[in-house]
Amino acid sequence: MNKKQRTIRLNLALILFSMGMALYAQDFYTAGERRHWLEKAHEYTPKLVETDMKPMNIVDIVKDQQAFQGWKAVRGSSMELFYKSPIKEQSGVVVDFGEHMTGYFTFSVAPLQTTPDAPARFKFTFGEVPAELATPFDPYPGGLSRAWLQDEIVTVMTVPDTITIPRRLAFRYVKIELIAAPNYEFTISDMKCKAVTSVSTIPESLPATVSPIIQKIDKTGLNTLKECMQTVYEDGPKRDQRLWIGDLYLESMANNYSYKQYNLTQRCLYLLAGLADENGYLNATVFERPQPHPQAKQFLFEYALLYNVTLKDYLVATGDQETVLDLWPVAKRQLDIVRQYLQKDGMMDFERVCKEWWVFFDWKSDLYKEVALQGVSIYAFAESYELAKMIGKEKEVADLPVSVKRMKQAAHKNFYDKKRGLFVGTKNKQISYASQIWMILSGVASKAEGRQALSALTSTADVCRPGTPYLYHYYIQSMVDCGMDKEAKEALVNFWGGMIEKGADTFWEAYDPDNDIISPYNFYPMNSYCHAWSCTPVYFIRKHPSIFQ
Amino acid sequence: MNKKQRTIRLNLALILFSMGMALYAQDFYTAGERRHWLEKAHEYTPKLVETDMKPMNIVDIVKDQQAFQGWKAVRGSSMELFYKSPIKEQSGVVVDFGEHMTGYFTFSVAPLQTTPDAPARFKFTFGEVPAELATPFDPYPGGLSRAWLQDEIVTVMTVPDTITIPRRLAFRYVKIELIAAPNYEFTISDMKCKAVTSVSTIPESLPATVSPIIQKIDKTGLNTLKECMQTVYEDGPKRDQRLWIGDLYLESMANNYSYKQYNLTQRCLYLLAGLADENGYLNATVFERPQPHPQAKQFLFEYALLYNVTLKDYLVATGDQETVLDLWPVAKRQLDIVRQYLQKDGMMDFERVCKEWWVFFDWKSDLYKEVALQGVSIYAFAESYELAKMIGKEKEVADLPVSVKRMKQAAHKNFYDKKRGLFVGTKNKQISYASQIWMILSGVASKAEGRQALSALTSTADVCRPGTPYLYHYYIQSMVDCGMDKEAKEALVNFWGGMIEKGADTFWEAYDPDNDIISPYNFYPMNSYCHAWSCTPVYFIRKHPSIFQ
Repeated sequence: MNKKQRTIRLNLALILFSMGMALYAQDFYTAGERRHWLEKAHEYTPKLVETDMKPMNIVDIVKDQQAFQGWKAVRGSSMELFYKSPIKEQSGVVVDFGEHMTGYFTFSVAPLQTTPDAPARFKFTFGEVPAELATPFDPYPGGLSRAWLQDEIVTVMTVPDTITIPRRLAFRYVKIELIAAPNYEFTISDMKCKAVTSVSTIPESLPATVSPIIQKIDKTGLNTLKECMQTVYEDGPKRDQRLWIGDLYLESMANNYSYKQYNLTQRCLYLLAGLADENGYLNATVFERPQPHPQAKQFLFEYALLYNVTLKDYLVATGDQETVLDLWPVAKRQLDIVRQYLQKDGMMDFERVCKEWWVFFDWKSDLYKEVALQGVSIYAFAESYELAKMIGKEKEVADLPVSVKRMKQAAHKNFYDKKRGLFVGTKNKQISYASQIWMILSGVASKAEGRQALSALTSTADVCRPGTPYLYHYYIQSMVDCGMDKEAKEALVNFWGGMIEKGADTFWEAYDPDNDIISPYNFYPMNSYCHAWSCTPVYFIRKHPSIFQ
Repeated sequence: MNKKQRTIRLNLALILFSMGMALYAQDFYTAGERRHWLEKAHEYTPKLVETDMKPMNIVDIVKDQQAFQGWKAVRGSSMELFYKSPIKEQSGVVVDFGEHMTGYFTFSVAPLQTTPDAPARFKFTFGEVPAELATPFDPYPGGLSRAWLQDEIVTVMTVPDTITIPRRLAFRYVKIELIAAPNYEFTISDMKCKAVTSVSTIPESLPATVSPIIQKIDKTGLNTLKECMQTVYEDGPKRDQRLWIGDLYLESMANNYSYKQYNLTQRCLYLLAGLADENGYLNATVFERPQPHPQAKQFLFEYALLYNVTLKDYLVATGDQETVLDLWPVAKRQLDIVRQYLQKDGMMDFERVCKEWWVFFDWKSDLYKEVALQGVSIYAFAESYELAKMIGKEKEVADLPVSVKRMKQAAHKNFYDKKRGLFVGTKNKQISYASQIWMILSGVASKAEGRQALSALTSTADVCRPGTPYLYHYYIQSMVDCGMDKEAKEALVNFWGGMIEKGADTFWEAYDPDNDIISPYNFYPMNSYCHAWSCTPVYFIRKHPSIFQ
């Protein structure tokens, strides 16, 4: 399909989608609005930058109790030697491309002496971290589709040949196993990866005076972000390879202070708008292929609200009123999500929300989310009102300031345990990071209360700690908001620097300093080791140089 | 690569190949000859006819001691039901396309209710016969590359999608296993095979009076031949997928009396000539991809000689003197193979030939080949002399009639056991079909002696019987030559009809009525169940209607 055919096909899809929404459902938006948003999303599709990457050398994946997940990659022989030796003698070898990349893997096979007369079969295993090359995938114990794991069986029917694996891969290491050997000797060579990203700009360097660890954290964050910036802000290039609002929020934030490729943010904002549910609420995640479509009825409470904050941040970064005015109806509609659960006493009806929405905040199965839910609702109202003011639409949401005030007061009254200096839920007395964080971000806690609460966390037993860098981002932000500059920097260096110490080339989806094999999916090779929501040190370091540099 | 680029690339390859042969070796042929032959081979490349084939229904592969190889395919439910039911509940199902086909397999996947959010992985196993779908391939006990077996692992990254497996396949049955299931329900549908063959003509029907079994044998032979007729005469579309002179000989013979697509014969004759060894001898097998090249130094004694017989048959069928004159230098040169081992007493130096050549005749490890070697040498001389006469070149090979006479006399003297009425080797007293057959085809045996020898075989103990339909072809021919019309038809019906009784859609590479799992490669799923050299009933039935119809 050529470009013109693609465009025709897309336009047809857009028309049908719009007509379908209008005909078969009482759509909250007009067909014209949807069509416009989807056309804009298409218009802002970035061109991918392709770079041919070559492997550096062979590595031995060696058991080491001290290494991350028990395995380390030790530099072995040269690619030159590997390329000229018979592959039969080298089956099982692991090749190191030297850095994390996202793209298409190509290799060549060539005979050594006699004429090849039979096919061969390879198993290639692609890994972001060394343990993925050493951990058997089967029998598969995980909770998501086994097919996410990047092992591919390739039959090579003729030798010589050059073959590209059709699947896009995210990896640094490749294990090569010859699982069906013909009788002749042959080599494998010219391995390369056509790496893709939509990043085409180079962000400013940090001053040379910045400490090495901050330099490293910044660089690793930039790499993480770059790998996730494809034709949308993906959550992870290995998995799930798609746009989630929560990741978009953090990625666009980091992008605003680094690559400044605002078109990608525009594309994602428009795409989510165009693919919103018929009731006007945003689906938390959408897909680009085979044509843009949402994960239908995938409602994630706080993600829908963070769309508005993303829009506001975008406006601050770009001053682009046109786009924001275009999308204002969507942002305005998301506020109804909060309104319908807001009770007269200023408290959110937590139980009803939980019945009707996915409430996330973190991958932490035991997290009690009542307090955080109240917090994020207040935060969304407050930020959305700021947004409205910036585009002269505050009259359309005139209820917000009053609601925010009432919600804050109710939260403080119902959640604040003055004696302990901590915020606690009404029906579950769990002390969690998430609760303190969202009481601070929402402004329920005063700066002093916030500082006290965050400090108390470290000396309290049975605290529900963050499970992912996603919540950790908000933790750092809450410290910044409370003026805990030193602690914020310390926490950032300890947390993200901890991943670097463990060998991270890009930041991970899940990280617990004390548990290398933590996984939200019951199998750590299923984790994404290059995950968008971990890239935000870039934002902190560059937005607040006085704190983090 | 478009057609023009392919042509440029081919021409470049031809020039380089010719120059290489001329520069680095004392080439028997001129660079101009080679180039001309390879250009002609390219010019006669047939266009493949593509046909979209759809599966018929589901089958159950059921254990049955009476069935061929212990498994039979029993008709199950409809494709319609299969296509609309979740694939998860149907993993392991076998689909029947109703007939043998060679081509490219395509399928579609589509979601049932919820939005797909993860990849899936399938294992497809393609089989020519039912047992291939029921026999585990691993641990692999066979003697050729495991990669010939047609099981392919396919990762489907997005649903919906339509996917084509890159490898060309030869099959009737497909087993579909979902080996990595995502959490959503989806279907597999629109399975099809873009079947390819270079056959574009329809051969004459046999008279309606011809018996059903002969009709069936003829039809199955035609199918076998059609499947093997690709851009060369392949030996088998599953394995080895390439041109061997022995198969070419039998296929072109059957083609002369059925499809009459002589360009394919021309292409193969020219290709083999252009890719002959620097000493002028033909390599027994050549490859088309990535560019035409021989299996270097793959010298098979009688195959080189049968090239001349193929050329003669081609001339008889077409009257095309130009092509034959073009290739006469090659045919002439092959005679030197015999000459260099021919001793003064008219006997071939069997031991020296065996040291320097692969002598085949049949897949039968215990076959003693001395007698057959003498026979095929005489036969090649005699047929080549006939060829020479037809193009007015007999003076160039004036030695042949004398040699033939001397070789025949020597053979009769040394091999004929008058008492037993059988031909036996000088150093090994094995009684074999191959020996009798080649003494008849070469004219060493009189018709009466031939009849006696063939009859004696059936009543002699410890006879080395044919292992493949390849030798069986010559067996039928030897009966025809001796005037054993009734026996020839009986043998043809019993042997090829036996395969049909066992369910053959196409004729097999190896067939022993008493051993279903016979295999030259130590693993019967590795056998080719659509094999060129088994197609010759087409030739017998159509060339000799008075005998076989």
